[in-house]
Amino acid sequence: MTASHLADLRAELARRGLAGFLVPRADEHLGEYVPPAAERLAWLTGFTGSAGLAVVLPEQAALFVDGRYVLQAAAQTDAALWQRRHITQEPPQDWLAATAPAGARIGYDPWLIAAESLQRFRDAGLDMVATEPNPIDAVWRDRPGPPLHPAEPHPLAFAGKPGAEKRAEIAAALRGAKEDAAVLTDPASIAWLLNIRGSDVPFTPFALGFAVICADGAVTLFMDPHKLPAPTRAWLGNNVTLADRAALPAAVDGLAGKRVRVDPAHAPVWFAERLRAAAATVSPGMDPCLLPKACKNPVEQEGARAAHRRDAVALCRYLHWFASAPGHATEMSAAARLLEFRNEAADFRGESFPAISAAGEHGAIMHYRVDEATDRPIRADELYLIDSGAQFPDGTTDVTRTLWTGEDPPPAELRDRYTRVLKGHIAIATLVFPQGVAGPHIDAFARHALWQAGLDFDHGTGHGVGSYLSVHEGPASLSRLAKPVPLAPGMILSDEPGYYAPGRYGIRLENLVMVQPANRPEAARPFLCFETLTLAPFDRALIELALLSLDEIAWLDAYHARVVAEIGPFLAPEPRTWLDRACARLSG
Amino acid sequence: MTASHLADLRAELARRGLAGFLVPRADEHLGEYVPPAAERLAWLTGFTGSAGLAVVLPEQAALFVDGRYVLQAAAQTDAALWQRRHITQEPPQDWLAATAPAGARIGYDPWLIAAESLQRFRDAGLDMVATEPNPIDAVWRDRPGPPLHPAEPHPLAFAGKPGAEKRAEIAAALRGAKEDAAVLTDPASIAWLLNIRGSDVPFTPFALGFAVICADGAVTLFMDPHKLPAPTRAWLGNNVTLADRAALPAAVDGLAGKRVRVDPAHAPVWFAERLRAAAATVSPGMDPCLLPKACKNPVEQEGARAAHRRDAVALCRYLHWFASAPGHATEMSAAARLLEFRNEAADFRGESFPAISAAGEHGAIMHYRVDEATDRPIRADELYLIDSGAQFPDGTTDVTRTLWTGEDPPPAELRDRYTRVLKGHIAIATLVFPQGVAGPHIDAFARHALWQAGLDFDHGTGHGVGSYLSVHEGPASLSRLAKPVPLAPGMILSDEPGYYAPGRYGIRLENLVMVQPANRPEAARPFLCFETLTLAPFDRALIELALLSLDEIAWLDAYHARVVAEIGPFLAPEPRTWLDRACARLSG
Repeated sequence: MTASHLADLRAELARRGLAGFLVPRADEHLGEYVPPAAERLAWLTGFTGSAGLAVVLPEQAALFVDGRYVLQAAAQTDAALWQRRHITQEPPQDWLAATAPAGARIGYDPWLIAAESLQRFRDAGLDMVATEPNPIDAVWRDRPGPPLHPAEPHPLAFAGKPGAEKRAEIAAALRGAKEDAAVLTDPASIAWLLNIRGSDVPFTPFALGFAVICADGAVTLFMDPHKLPAPTRAWLGNNVTLADRAALPAAVDGLAGKRVRVDPAHAPVWFAERLRAAAATVSPGMDPCLLPKACKNPVEQEGARAAHRRDAVALCRYLHWFASAPGHATEMSAAARLLEFRNEAADFRGESFPAISAAGEHGAIMHYRVDEATDRPIRADELYLIDSGAQFPDGTTDVTRTLWTGEDPPPAELRDRYTRVLKGHIAIATLVFPQGVAGPHIDAFARHALWQAGLDFDHGTGHGVGSYLSVHEGPASLSRLAKPVPLAPGMILSDEPGYYAPGRYGIRLENLVMVQPANRPEAARPFLCFETLTLAPFDRALIELALLSLDEIAWLDAYHARVVAEIGPFLAPEPRTWLDRACARLSG
Repeated sequence: MTASHLADLRAELARRGLAGFLVPRADEHLGEYVPPAAERLAWLTGFTGSAGLAVVLPEQAALFVDGRYVLQAAAQTDAALWQRRHITQEPPQDWLAATAPAGARIGYDPWLIAAESLQRFRDAGLDMVATEPNPIDAVWRDRPGPPLHPAEPHPLAFAGKPGAEKRAEIAAALRGAKEDAAVLTDPASIAWLLNIRGSDVPFTPFALGFAVICADGAVTLFMDPHKLPAPTRAWLGNNVTLADRAALPAAVDGLAGKRVRVDPAHAPVWFAERLRAAAATVSPGMDPCLLPKACKNPVEQEGARAAHRRDAVALCRYLHWFASAPGHATEMSAAARLLEFRNEAADFRGESFPAISAAGEHGAIMHYRVDEATDRPIRADELYLIDSGAQFPDGTTDVTRTLWTGEDPPPAELRDRYTRVLKGHIAIATLVFPQGVAGPHIDAFARHALWQAGLDFDHGTGHGVGSYLSVHEGPASLSRLAKPVPLAPGMILSDEPGYYAPGRYGIRLENLVMVQPANRPEAARPFLCFETLTLAPFDRALIELALLSLDEIAWLDAYHARVVAEIGPFLAPEPRTWLDRACARLSG
């Protein structure tokens, strides 16, 4: 099947005079979840992971994936057709530079790659050729159409600030940067700016589209008119002009002579190339919505607290169910049970990502997704890791707990590892830091207790989280690989250190935290701290008290007391009794 | 005086059709210490600080300096001629974009600015024009000539690795990157690569020059022949071709068709511009010598330990003298006394930077340099900060201690602040971390104890240090503003947190530390740690024991015991007795 797809693509490339072609797992918004029409990588290779890149040459082809997808890529693709490579250890541009003949013309779809990513190929000395329309689309005969779900108003009771006010602020920022306009290619930015939500892709409630905002605050929204029912049009107001997606190229050409901001990391390079061809000046800069969207306003902050309380009730009911019914559940049935509890929460709109329900050795697979083939019973005397999240109109949640399934105390190694991960979690949760500090500067606090023992974990400590938007939201994160964006009040981030023993078990402990001003009145500059949003007990059976400092124990006791006070009243007697026991003081 | 210089420059700019001109404090190697011929900024403005940038327009002129030089710039320059601005808070490119008329042609000397710095002006929409020769040189009538001090061999007993071997390694790296050559513009890189040293600028023992290394290991050294006596020529060998500095442009033109590495952050943009004009391909990349130079080889590591022991003997003699003779010294006389002790150390070759000898309120000026005008007695009951370093052929040192000059115990505030700084110092000194971690990721450990109290300090935690080379050496550092270069075995860095109360006092505690493999045999990846090189007691009068953990006290006791064991035997009875007392156990 994929053999014929690869042959068809090669024939098409030959017709177009190309020696090679890049096939990233991306749509034209460069987003995490893509519609079926953008699943070109899966169509070509069979690989269905959420990140990867294929490079096709006349005689060779390679699929590049990151560490979490090495096994999946091997299982899903044909070794006779595809070399499988590690995308960070053997970067595709290096492979291409070593493999393709000198001067070979390598095609790329300018809608599916950002300027910064493309530059890496050019820096490797490759002759990269923009190729439109995508050659795959010429040979993918049953390619699905784009999603056409309606966009809906996101009411002020949740958004907290009128779209007109947001547009005025972005416009002022553009004028401050001496820019005439900015192109918005991230549907989450558009959803935030215009206070609309949608359902074009799973898990993230936005509508796919593009927009241009001018320095006077006027916005043109490029979106299929079928996705904009009359109430949504009325909600958008007169200062938002609607245009069909097909009108975008001409509109970009109309920016000739203007200075236009384009995000070199997140916008398809098509925009910069088209603007330059139209004699506009490209001003490389961050999507102007990213930072204000990340800093939740007071209404969004209050919404996040409320959404987290409702989610915590569902989660605590689940944890009680899990503690009370061991031996009956499989990974899939447990995840389904959690979804049922969430379905009973007010205003639950769906999961914010596919839940990771992982027993024993599956816990060590960081992005494990259970299916019929991998499902297995959750057994006694092992670790069970449950990482899940929910979308509510007032907020997005993401929480991980790791549980011991046995009656007897867990082995010392597990208690040691769990407690070191917990120490890392607490180190972030209790940190006080001055304005200006960014995630890469503090990620290591989550690792210190592990490092002392020669241990570590292979992912960032945390990511930004949207407000009824993407559970993975920029520009800030707690990862040392990320750009250092200073943390600012209102940002919501995950605090999720872990430890993974491949083939044996995985531990991850995740709460969402929100940046807040710290009360340091005597300080010479503003200091910040984290407010913990997530409310659910940590498994006391796995805590090795001797490894905790008195301050850490005090934090845990206060946190558990808060869980009881805020969630207990919403639980039935049985789970309530369970919660009281789970949250009992650890200190004597 | 400077008024006529400014008028002369403006007339010259008008003759060349330029609306403005940049005057950075830089020589054509973009180094920290520059020869008198490169002091154009001082000639033009009167400002003699080590960093700054002037921008000259027909009607306005501004001098941009960083926080440490705000006061000095105001004192040294004429407010009627110069607007004084903060270089990070009001970046010069923003000022220019707001002040210069649209389309104004702004000149820059391509020898005095790196590509990355220039790009910031272009990104601000400015029309930047390369201007050669420098317009100042046309009107600076008594401009000094270049320094012509001889370059000398740096023997293998100190260098540890033959130049031919280093050249072969760099050549292999160029071939691996598919590059034909690299230009070397940093005299420290050339000194390391060719195992030579010199004395063209103060404090850093290198000879100014340029070099090109080809992918076959052949090097052309562009240096005035007067600086290369016969023994040095013989030492360099046949595979190093000597050429006059004037031959450089033609040699660069001769790289037509080649792929040539140029460091966009550290090389004058002249090289990239000239190479492109010559139809060579510019490959932007880090100076290939930076990383291997930073990772000291075993001979250099042993040299560093030996140099630090000799330096510690001088420093401990000084600390004893200081403790025994209070009330007699001024800042200048104390610094002079320290230099005398160092002069008695074997193979002392000079200071590695101008010593900072700062009493009381002067300690809060991070780069205070005492002179006749600012000198004052060191009084009882205040803090005295001494930050100094030495050049030895086997190693470069840099050490800071902060001392209490009183007989009675210091106030609680000083003990609190000193101890929090000390906790930060120890946190870095004791850190264990996996390979891949870089300075920006761990700098915050040095601040944690301060942050908890709403305190901080306004400089990086530490910088790289050379081996009988610059006391400020890249590419690694312990600063969150720096590029994240992974720490690697053999790197020497300073660990120097501080705390500054403007107008009152300053505290800084600095040892040099060397990255070493950590003994974590069970770890899944290599872990690293720091070996402390500097040996001198911390002032126990300023330590608040109640703020220290048991682990921190144990580290201090072990460190002080090591100081006694390694330095005590080299001291006369009186300082020896003093050292024993200064290093007595803090734990009960």
